[in-house]
Amino acid sequence: MKDTDPIDTLIGLMARLPGLGPRSARRAVLHLIRKRGPLLQPLSEAMTEVARTARECLNCGNVSTSDICPICTDEGRGNGLLCVVEDVADLWAMERAQVFRGRYHVLGGTLSALDGVGPDELRIPRLMDRLGAENVTEVILALNATIDGQTTAHYIADQLEGRVSVSSLAQGVPIGGELDYLDDGTITAALNARKRF
Amino acid sequence: MKDTDPIDTLIGLMARLPGLGPRSARRAVLHLIRKRGPLLQPLSEAMTEVARTARECLNCGNVSTSDICPICTDEGRGNGLLCVVEDVADLWAMERAQVFRGRYHVLGGTLSALDGVGPDELRIPRLMDRLGAENVTEVILALNATIDGQTTAHYIADQLEGRVSVSSLAQGVPIGGELDYLDDGTITAALNARKRF
Ligand SMILES: [Zn+2]
Ligand SMILES: [Zn+2]
Repeated sequence: MKDTDPIDTLIGLMARLPGLGPRSARRAVLHLIRKRGPLLQPLSEAMTEVARTARECLNCGNVSTSDICPICTDEGRGNGLLCVVEDVADLWAMERAQVFRGRYHVLGGTLSALDGVGPDELRIPRLMDRLGAENVTEVILALNATIDGQTTAHYIADQLEGRVSVSSLAQGVPIGGELDYLDDGTITAALNARKRF
Repeated sequence: MKDTDPIDTLIGLMARLPGLGPRSARRAVLHLIRKRGPLLQPLSEAMTEVARTARECLNCGNVSTSDICPICTDEGRGNGLLCVVEDVADLWAMERAQVFRGRYHVLGGTLSALDGVGPDELRIPRLMDRLGAENVTEVILALNATIDGQTTAHYIADQLEGRVSVSSLAQGVPIGGELDYLDDGTITAALNARKRF
């Protein structure tokens, strides 16, 4: 159990993953060593591959293995609808619900005077550029129902006023709730009942 | 989000780790992609290294990166005390308590008629071989305080009777408790108050 032991190194790194503490990291590493062939080897290869290829989409901020993500290059999704989310996890949650067939814009957070996060840090200029470039007719604000999320939604709605129709997810998102915690049905209901912002 | 996407592959493999479900696997992978330099790259390298080098100690069943683990090769730990544990996680728990300076024997489970686990599956023959080879004077049975753990402890104590002194962890291990869940102080107390089996 020396610090330079690769097993200890692996435990230390695993413990830095969200949701894993030192104890669950130790359990996970023992499990990996026991399942070296069926799990550890494919996992180490998948990590190496993701480390080599994963990047943010230059257009929307989604993560994928190409400079422009598959959603942005899918002509069938250029239907004029653009869904603005805070985070890639929220984009994934929307995709799992399989109800939205337009494109996304991932802000990468919310405005926060306290943390010094302004519009430029949130890909908001890029959002404005996309309106004309992709013939956007409606922007759907799918931000979390938190104070920061709604502050950011209002700021973006102000910027978009007069340029494009703006709506927001409505019915079904609980106060203080985060999209990534909702079931698919709730997301579907919220999208279908979206209202003008 | 195609099945052949390396990001999806990584999420699917991460979700198979104990303690991580699909949702926490997605969170972990997004975190890794964001922390590519400081976390994902070292983690993928550590996994590759562990996949290449980790193995079970041929003598005691501990995992390390050599055929015989550092505890078994440490002459200072050849003091005649041999601590029998179910699992490598239990060995690590004992080591964290920093109170035991002998060697270990990892059974790799407990006897179970139901699951077809007999003495040969548990390195019990190897335990017998070690008694003479390492001049063992006392075997400390540090098995979990579960029914299977105690059944196994009694079986081993019977095998060892008349050959070596046998003790077991006593005070401090709660009924139904598992070593890996105990704090270091409890383990220390249990070891210091061990009683003849
Ligand atoms: Zn994109
Ligand atoms: Zn060993």
